Amino acid sequence: MILTVTLNTALDITYRVRSLRPHTSHRVTDVTERPGGKGVNVARVLAALGHEVTVTGFTGGATGRAVQDRLATAEGVLDALVPVTGATRRTIAVVDEHTGDTTQLNEPGPTVTPAEWSAFQEAYEGLVPSASAVALCGSLPPGVPVGAYAGLVRTAKAAGVPVLLDTSGEALRRGVAARPDIVKPNADELAELTGSHDPLRATQDARRRGARSVVASLGPEGLLAHTPEGRWRATPPTRVHGNPTGAGDSAVAGLLSGLVENLPWPDRLARAVALAAATVVAPVAGEFDRGAYEELVGRVTVTGEVSAA
Amino acid sequence: MILTVTLNTALDITYRVRSLRPHTSHRVTDVTERPGGKGVNVARVLAALGHEVTVTGFTGGATGRAVQDRLATAEGVLDALVPVTGATRRTIAVVDEHTGDTTQLNEPGPTVTPAEWSAFQEAYEGLVPSASAVALCGSLPPGVPVGAYAGLVRTAKAAGVPVLLDTSGEALRRGVAARPDIVKPNADELAELTGSHDPLRATQDARRRGARSVVASLGPEGLLAHTPEGRWRATPPTRVHGNPTGAGDSAVAGLLSGLVENLPWPDRLARAVALAAATVVAPVAGEFDRGAYEELVGRVTVTGEVSAA
Repeated sequence: MILTVTLNTALDITYRVRSLRPHTSHRVTDVTERPGGKGVNVARVLAALGHEVTVTGFTGGATGRAVQDRLATAEGVLDALVPVTGATRRTIAVVDEHTGDTTQLNEPGPTVTPAEWSAFQEAYEGLVPSASAVALCGSLPPGVPVGAYAGLVRTAKAAGVPVLLDTSGEALRRGVAARPDIVKPNADELAELTGSHDPLRATQDARRRGARSVVASLGPEGLLAHTPEGRWRATPPTRVHGNPTGAGDSAVAGLLSGLVENLPWPDRLARAVALAAATVVAPVAGEFDRGAYEELVGRVTVTGEVSAA
Repeated sequence: MILTVTLNTALDITYRVRSLRPHTSHRVTDVTERPGGKGVNVARVLAALGHEVTVTGFTGGATGRAVQDRLATAEGVLDALVPVTGATRRTIAVVDEHTGDTTQLNEPGPTVTPAEWSAFQEAYEGLVPSASAVALCGSLPPGVPVGAYAGLVRTAKAAGVPVLLDTSGEALRRGVAARPDIVKPNADELAELTGSHDPLRATQDARRRGARSVVASLGPEGLLAHTPEGRWRATPPTRVHGNPTGAGDSAVAGLLSGLVENLPWPDRLARAVALAAATVVAPVAGEFDRGAYEELVGRVTVTGEVSAA
């Protein structure tokens, strides 16, 4: 199985309103809810690709129960979330039906106590040995030490399990230093990590900081990969329009599934780019359109060079 | 005990954000949750005044459980909510820390099935005979017939229990025709019911439509009451500043507590006006400031005339 870690799981709520006007009252015309947080999104896509996935992280309160109730009905996804006293956060996406734009409100998440963080680490150590790969995804809730991902990367490496890290800021900086197999920053996260806005230079720099492979997501331009096996750029065949929410998580699922299937890097990248594009065009935010994926995956352009070594 | 009915109960959530800007992403800095819906707010104030209160209406889903968990810890409030398959709605108040203004997002509420509506009516018929007064408060969730309040008014009157109705639109129009003892519309609701924007004329008209007594809430100007015993206007001693959320519900609690304590109308109105003003000035939306209430209640001006009859 593939293990995805979401320390700040969420109940993702989408509201549709006729037109969002600050300082007025709105009747919400449609409400949808789904389990969220980056690692949970990754798990959902991996399961749709036919992989067995276990999700861990924290769950608490009525919102945590709502997340777990929904995970229980998701085929191929095993719930190994660790209970906390605080409540799982909500994220609210308010979609303006008039403009189509989205306004996002994100709760900070529960405060995790030292005892709860220890309980999680113990659960994680128990899960890692049976995993074919580990993904560490998203922000840290209050109370979790900023070096958390560095420790989780080391545990996976000590068990010989490949580990992908997808986070930002100081958590990414510390995590990269623990030498994860793959990091998948977007352009902003990469620039914040390295100080360089030149993606080519920045991916090289991120490798020097400790990441074995760096796959930078460049939005509509696709992915730029710098790995020990070579460097590639993968570009979608057409510019797609839609909601980019979750596209990065779908790309992570593409990379991880390709890794455990032992695909060569160009095939992993093509899959990741096609899944991301198929997520942008899907009518429901964060889901991917399977028909679009199957149509796109053979048409992704991958250019680059294999390393001499 | 006093029975309050909230057919569209809610989990009232308040978010603080630094500054609300549509089409951007916001980190919520503070989250508070409390049980809501107008009848639940009325019950909380009645309990704070020392009355035994029973709340009924509908509850469902994780949000309903959150409402009930919180009601269980509220002293003097008995939970007699009726379960439904749908989920209790959330309301979200987004407070902009920069301007102090609030943007409101209200979910529509669960769709109530005919069987669930029948189960509620049966529960209500069982509760009414032990009540000293009944308050019917707020909007109707989807699925509940628009004439719902008219039926609930008739049940209370048949049992000889005084009944107050606080709703709007067609539900108010139908409910008034069933001859409730008191209706408490605000200026807009009264104008919508009667077609008149002159409060004096409109309160008279509302009585002709069936209400025994009409108490119109005129915001900062206080209350205007038209009853078989006389007509009065009750005005707060000073113009108060703050958040008017819940002020109308506090006024209802003042009227109901005065009714069951057999206070003369001027004393009921003074209590209602003081509670409403003490709610506007309270730091937490919907709560009332007890010190402010006790200071204000003796200083409310009540002018009017007792009926000759």
